[in-house]
Amino acid sequence: MRIEVICTGDEVLTGKIVNTNFSYITQKLEDVGLSVAWETTVGDDRESLLLAFQLAGQRADAVIVNGGLGPTVDDLSQEIAAKAAGVELVLDEGWLEQMEAFFRRRNRIMPPNNRKQAMLPEGAEVLDNPVGTACGFAVDIGRARFYFTPGVPRELRRMLEEQIVPRLLAKSGLQATIYLKRFHSYGIGESHADALLTGIEEIDPDGAVKLGFRAHYPQLETKLTVRGKDMEDVRRRLEPVEREVRKRFGNFILAEDDQTLERVVLDELQQRRASLALVEMFTSGQIAARLVHLSGAEKVIRRGVVALDIAEVCAAVGWNQAEPITRIDREAAEAVALAARAATGATHALAVLIDLDEGTDRIDFGASVCLAIVSGHDAVSRRSRIVGGRDWVRLGAVELGLDCLRRYLQDLPVDERIDFEKV
Amino acid sequence: MRIEVICTGDEVLTGKIVNTNFSYITQKLEDVGLSVAWETTVGDDRESLLLAFQLAGQRADAVIVNGGLGPTVDDLSQEIAAKAAGVELVLDEGWLEQMEAFFRRRNRIMPPNNRKQAMLPEGAEVLDNPVGTACGFAVDIGRARFYFTPGVPRELRRMLEEQIVPRLLAKSGLQATIYLKRFHSYGIGESHADALLTGIEEIDPDGAVKLGFRAHYPQLETKLTVRGKDMEDVRRRLEPVEREVRKRFGNFILAEDDQTLERVVLDELQQRRASLALVEMFTSGQIAARLVHLSGAEKVIRRGVVALDIAEVCAAVGWNQAEPITRIDREAAEAVALAARAATGATHALAVLIDLDEGTDRIDFGASVCLAIVSGHDAVSRRSRIVGGRDWVRLGAVELGLDCLRRYLQDLPVDERIDFEKV
Repeated sequence: MRIEVICTGDEVLTGKIVNTNFSYITQKLEDVGLSVAWETTVGDDRESLLLAFQLAGQRADAVIVNGGLGPTVDDLSQEIAAKAAGVELVLDEGWLEQMEAFFRRRNRIMPPNNRKQAMLPEGAEVLDNPVGTACGFAVDIGRARFYFTPGVPRELRRMLEEQIVPRLLAKSGLQATIYLKRFHSYGIGESHADALLTGIEEIDPDGAVKLGFRAHYPQLETKLTVRGKDMEDVRRRLEPVEREVRKRFGNFILAEDDQTLERVVLDELQQRRASLALVEMFTSGQIAARLVHLSGAEKVIRRGVVALDIAEVCAAVGWNQAEPITRIDREAAEAVALAARAATGATHALAVLIDLDEGTDRIDFGASVCLAIVSGHDAVSRRSRIVGGRDWVRLGAVELGLDCLRRYLQDLPVDERIDFEKV
Repeated sequence: MRIEVICTGDEVLTGKIVNTNFSYITQKLEDVGLSVAWETTVGDDRESLLLAFQLAGQRADAVIVNGGLGPTVDDLSQEIAAKAAGVELVLDEGWLEQMEAFFRRRNRIMPPNNRKQAMLPEGAEVLDNPVGTACGFAVDIGRARFYFTPGVPRELRRMLEEQIVPRLLAKSGLQATIYLKRFHSYGIGESHADALLTGIEEIDPDGAVKLGFRAHYPQLETKLTVRGKDMEDVRRRLEPVEREVRKRFGNFILAEDDQTLERVVLDELQQRRASLALVEMFTSGQIAARLVHLSGAEKVIRRGVVALDIAEVCAAVGWNQAEPITRIDREAAEAVALAARAATGATHALAVLIDLDEGTDRIDFGASVCLAIVSGHDAVSRRSRIVGGRDWVRLGAVELGLDCLRRYLQDLPVDERIDFEKV
């Protein structure tokens, strides 16, 4: 089945906004085993829209159109859809009522120009939008079924997942139940991960499990797409494969599915009613920033400190020993973490210090990251050299700090070698 | 002149990466008064590429193709360009030499598969790539001139600006000299800014100055595109208009052109050999994060502290008065900033405290932001209510804190009302 996507709107065509809706749509389809063959972007202009609809209607079996369903004069999707389909625009009484109810619930009266959003091509199938006033719809143009979706991202997402993906799967004749299992890891590069998981797809004798990756440095997302008769069949097929992935990746899996590294760390701390102090030297406070905005953080995060040289770091944590710390190494990180824990009364402290290379930023610019984690009963530390330019080093140091904290809280070794460090 | 863009590559078509190259290309063209009429994305697949080239060649006068110039087997742009143009692929000796020199300068030997990058359609015009091995080129397909560019963003950018934009301007018959002047502001919404600048384009009697906006909350970018015979003519036309923009926006202009708010703040501090302590309560340390990674920050930023409740904030800055601070207001912000300045020995301190609404996150969730700036000779403070959900409030509070610091350092009032606050 050939699927195309048409994105509409002057804001996208002129680059005022980056087209993240398209990458969302195509990823969602890939996740259920469907592929987009062609994408077209046109502006809010009748001639271009009509031509784009006609061309896609000649080539494709299914077309997703995004945008142009709003109440203003530059929203033209329904009008041009009707023209391309060779039908009239007619008022959909059902959608009009739904819109009026939508405004009533918000104690507002529907402005007259919203009525336009209930004008659909005659014979169109309504695609529900439970979170907005833009009515989705499906209609045939040429040899393709066209699915019209709103440009507002959260409205698009609901409609795509609940209304359109099931229709596309049914149309494609693919088995109805598809499940996406995701693992998040840090420290294994994509090609290494690929090699580690050699043969994993063959565990399922029917080839119903497909492996994929999405790298967003520093983390790697590993995806298993599983097809089955029903959810029970999917679970049965997935179980031996996910067990094997967990075994081969071992301690490198930091979260699964919708979980995040920072949420896992915060949950571990919360479960033991622990509190945390953070000291950061080069990471601009980005470790704190990843944790502080999460719900429940106010009970856990005691204090975060950022300073740019070691003397200032020591002053900030109230280091009052006769011997000043001048060298950045594992011992210094432990001493700083201990002092931060003492100064704040937190149960745990993480210190991430850094010894940067000399000179200007360049692709082989690097640093030694020295980090330590202390709690009431012990202290651990690690030293890693990371290269790749200042921003790259900063990203790596943030992830390394958070991931070592996760490992410490889960009783896993914090010094396992990662692919991104130099030896 | 009708311009189209074709983006190629499975990574873009499957959503593995978001297509920021397209928004970059179309913005750059808009900035010089050119418009993109149509965009197509296709994968690394011969049939789709050929069809996309043929269709665009029928419709457009100029087509920019992005991607597919690499050394691997899935890089097909030269091959399909030759086929669509009806010519052979021939080795470009000049580019082969340039590539070999490129590798020699890096003390490496050119791998054999890079030779493919010097195979161009016969008669193609070479577009130089001073920062990579992918050779850009221009060739006629159908009635359009096609410009082929590399997918690597920094290579694309150089080639677009230095090689392609001048050719497009010449081809379009637009006057050769076009200049883009940009103003960055915080606190004025787009429609308010538009109203403030009414009639600004008419200052130039020949209509050679065009006004535009790009909103990236919380900042607004105001753009003046000026066309002239030469740079002197451009400057003469721009001068009265930019003077008027500065007058109407007044203190709200925080930076111009490539300058940023954080760079302006850091430069102001650096010029007076000042140093800064930061205390943040809800902004996750994002104010510190904006400043700390800039070059020169190590001489200026003394310490940043993040804490989530006022008692912990006070402990972190060593508040040792008999009376504890319990209420979050302007006086509390001043007291905290004073204590932070004293504790760190910095010349300046900024404290941003927050009094959040009760309850869960929602679209009308808000907060009172109380901030204070102190230096050796005085203290200023401000209280603003911002609503729009937690993330929105956080973004607003970061910008407000930084911008008030900019105003303080530039001897401007820190309490001017902004469009994003409720009264």
